[in-house]
Amino acid sequence: MSLITSFKELTEHLATLNHQPRVAVVCPYDEGTCGAVADALSDGFIRAILVGDKSMIEATGLPARFPSLVEIEEASTPAEAAAAGVRLAREKKADILMKGLVGTDVLLHAVLNKEQGILDRGNLLTHITVSHVPGMNRLLFYSDVAVIPYPTLEQRVKMIHLDLGVLRRFGIERPKVALIHFTEKVNPKFPNSVDYVELIKLAENGEFGDAVLGGPMDVKTACDLHSAQVKGIESEVCGAADLLIFPNIESGNTFYKTLSYFAKARMAGMLLGPDVPVVLPSRSDSADSKYNSLALAALACH
Amino acid sequence: MSLITSFKELTEHLATLNHQPRVAVVCPYDEGTCGAVADALSDGFIRAILVGDKSMIEATGLPARFPSLVEIEEASTPAEAAAAGVRLAREKKADILMKGLVGTDVLLHAVLNKEQGILDRGNLLTHITVSHVPGMNRLLFYSDVAVIPYPTLEQRVKMIHLDLGVLRRFGIERPKVALIHFTEKVNPKFPNSVDYVELIKLAENGEFGDAVLGGPMDVKTACDLHSAQVKGIESEVCGAADLLIFPNIESGNTFYKTLSYFAKARMAGMLLGPDVPVVLPSRSDSADSKYNSLALAALACH
Repeated sequence: MSLITSFKELTEHLATLNHQPRVAVVCPYDEGTCGAVADALSDGFIRAILVGDKSMIEATGLPARFPSLVEIEEASTPAEAAAAGVRLAREKKADILMKGLVGTDVLLHAVLNKEQGILDRGNLLTHITVSHVPGMNRLLFYSDVAVIPYPTLEQRVKMIHLDLGVLRRFGIERPKVALIHFTEKVNPKFPNSVDYVELIKLAENGEFGDAVLGGPMDVKTACDLHSAQVKGIESEVCGAADLLIFPNIESGNTFYKTLSYFAKARMAGMLLGPDVPVVLPSRSDSADSKYNSLALAALACH
Repeated sequence: MSLITSFKELTEHLATLNHQPRVAVVCPYDEGTCGAVADALSDGFIRAILVGDKSMIEATGLPARFPSLVEIEEASTPAEAAAAGVRLAREKKADILMKGLVGTDVLLHAVLNKEQGILDRGNLLTHITVSHVPGMNRLLFYSDVAVIPYPTLEQRVKMIHLDLGVLRRFGIERPKVALIHFTEKVNPKFPNSVDYVELIKLAENGEFGDAVLGGPMDVKTACDLHSAQVKGIESEVCGAADLLIFPNIESGNTFYKTLSYFAKARMAGMLLGPDVPVVLPSRSDSADSKYNSLALAALACH
């Protein structure tokens, strides 16, 4: 497939596919969720199973507007709707799970349920974000801004595997992965910088297939070739990073929020690790970001 | 004094002052340092003592170009130049110390020397950055992107005191301070979020004078009122933060580098805590940022 370098190219690519993944939307009662689902239905790249109170779902107008693309799965309480959405995913009747007007903790509780959930034992639950900064010639992927505060080496290995699976869906054949730190120096005082050396060794031994890892390096070195050259850092990743792995949730989250507010970037995000991608927008996400997240999940599950 | 809301207003304000602080520039041999010093001399807001090898200093052309504003202090090695620059500051013959073509570790070694240095026992060495993002109606101040990896509660108290001293020089009479975290929830798993509660109590008891502290909150909530309103967070700081205190160096550094590269912000920075402000540009800093840092230090020492 050809390389996808923007959200516009992503949705154009999805429109060319014959198969529309089924999104189980838990409690689709709020305007933000319904607007994003309506746009994705209208653009033809998903079908939807709306899970929750039937009269509230009908009040959104979605079933009447898209009769051939929308089904309703009744559930009375948010907890029951969450469990029903997860069950649909487990029974392979839904390809994507999306959070509507239900608490994140309620939905995650159902996802992580040991008997009835959709996260296999030993699998990692992590979050991937994709951003497009105006003027940039490619998408930037990064983890983890939301789920794992301080990943261990083992968790980072699993995280990179999950993330690279997504990058390859975007046609990035030889992903460049930047291991982010505040300096390029390795120092035992900062255990993540030592883990980075291990990760690079694993990559050189083929752990991640055709992918290049570089670091420690800061976000500017990862994305701006000029900064790397001034610092004399030589790595194929410098100025060309596709995927940024952050040292901790505070730095990842700061990157995400700063790109979004100050650099006016367009955003998408989803949870990785469960049987199906989980779209879990936060309250302050824009309608555009919710729509992009649906597109991201739709590509990831194809 | 009136409020300074941009770097242009900062240098305009400095030009109106009668007194020009003396900057001891250690090893001013590189183009970046000399260019910034020349511009600041030319704009009339500093005098300079160039510390190092006499013939190398004369080769820069600065002494010939600004004969009435520039002195030379001879020193043969970079370590001797660093010690000489620090001595000038200690003897109150220099008001600002600036790093040229000398290792950061060499200069800091001289600054921190127990007998001959300029950091009093019990004082904190910290770093403050100031950014102006295009289109923003104010400057953003933040700490610590460079020196203290994981500040303790006591260090944070000292850091906020030092930072607020700078903000007040910019005419910010009632600074709003955002205590940054990845979520607004306080959780003992994240000790900095617990420290933030203590800091807010201290502020309410008058520790920081006329200043408002708020948090935990993320950078978007701190700077974007709309995000705060969507999340239902009520604090005078939301969307109006003047000073951002970061949980750790990884998140602070990520904010700094992301604003600089992706949001095209103008930057300035300096070390606080020693007897005089120390301007310590990094290799990848732009000429503009070195010049702004001199202006920042010039205001701070007035």
